[in-house]
Amino acid sequence: MPALGKGYNSHCLCFEFESRVIPQERLRSVEILPRGPHCSSTEIVARLVTGEKICLNPSATWVRRLVRYVIEKEALQRG
Amino acid sequence: MPALGKGYNSHCLCFEFESRVIPQERLRSVEILPRGPHCSSTEIVARLVTGEKICLNPSATWVRRLVRYVIEKEALQRG
Repeated sequence: MPALGKGYNSHCLCFEFESRVIPQERLRSVEILPRGPHCSSTEIVARLVTGEKICLNPSATWVRRLVRYVIEKEALQRG
Repeated sequence: MPALGKGYNSHCLCFEFESRVIPQERLRSVEILPRGPHCSSTEIVARLVTGEKICLNPSATWVRRLVRYVIEKEALQRG
């Protein structure tokens, strides 16, 4: 898995993306960093239950679905 | 604004939510922590450009819309 630190530079955090699908139960948190002056693309950094941090491709359907699933599930259950 | 640290306990991170809408340009990042053994609800922590960290209500429509906007905009522009 491409580690966060590997491709780190002073602009964008992510240099390469994890291509394998991360099951929700392996996910501790997911951080979304909108594009801005520091980086021209939105970045998504997942923290796994192992502590590992990996970059996800914000254009990948499964990544957007994962983020939506996490927030929509909450909304459905809480009303 | 309710600071992250204020309501911190060893289980959930968030104790109270920001009720005011955060404009996207004030947002540096948004972190989603799915529910788990540590906390029975999904938590959403926003980091502002000022460095401040605040808890958002995952059940609030504007919060889900903000998260969706950030990831969907990226997908539309990148293909």
